Amino acid sequence: MLAKIYITLKKDVLDPQGSVIANSLKSLGFNNIEDVRQGKYIEIKLDSENEESANKQINEMCEKLLANLVIEDYKVEIN
Amino acid sequence: MLAKIYITLKKDVLDPQGSVIANSLKSLGFNNIEDVRQGKYIEIKLDSENEESANKQINEMCEKLLANLVIEDYKVEIN
Repeated sequence: MLAKIYITLKKDVLDPQGSVIANSLKSLGFNNIEDVRQGKYIEIKLDSENEESANKQINEMCEKLLANLVIEDYKVEIN
Repeated sequence: MLAKIYITLKKDVLDPQGSVIANSLKSLGFNNIEDVRQGKYIEIKLDSENEESANKQINEMCEKLLANLVIEDYKVEIN
């Protein structure tokens, strides 16, 4: 089973990496950029019997290790 | 227009960050992990007239700055 995890900074948290990317893109001539946010993308291959238990485990992983819930949100997709 | 960009290492490229995550998760008791790959996730808000021109621009940004095409693949979704 393959889990795709998207970790993003919460809306109100400053994203200096995103700002750097935005400025670099603007200096390359892309002047119509309004905002850039950088996050993390993690793929986990899991040996799991069913989607429900995989989902539960992945959420546990995010809460214990992968995401910092004070400043980050996460979203999980399981195939 | 919001573009979501997923940048991942190519299949054959070693992913030390992914290995560290896999080992950390295993040491937390998640023993059914088979593989972990870490990538980047970037959201770009763009002032663009239509999806086609946004798509063209985003692909150009990926090729010029965001992704290293020697070792990385990217995928774009535009809403």
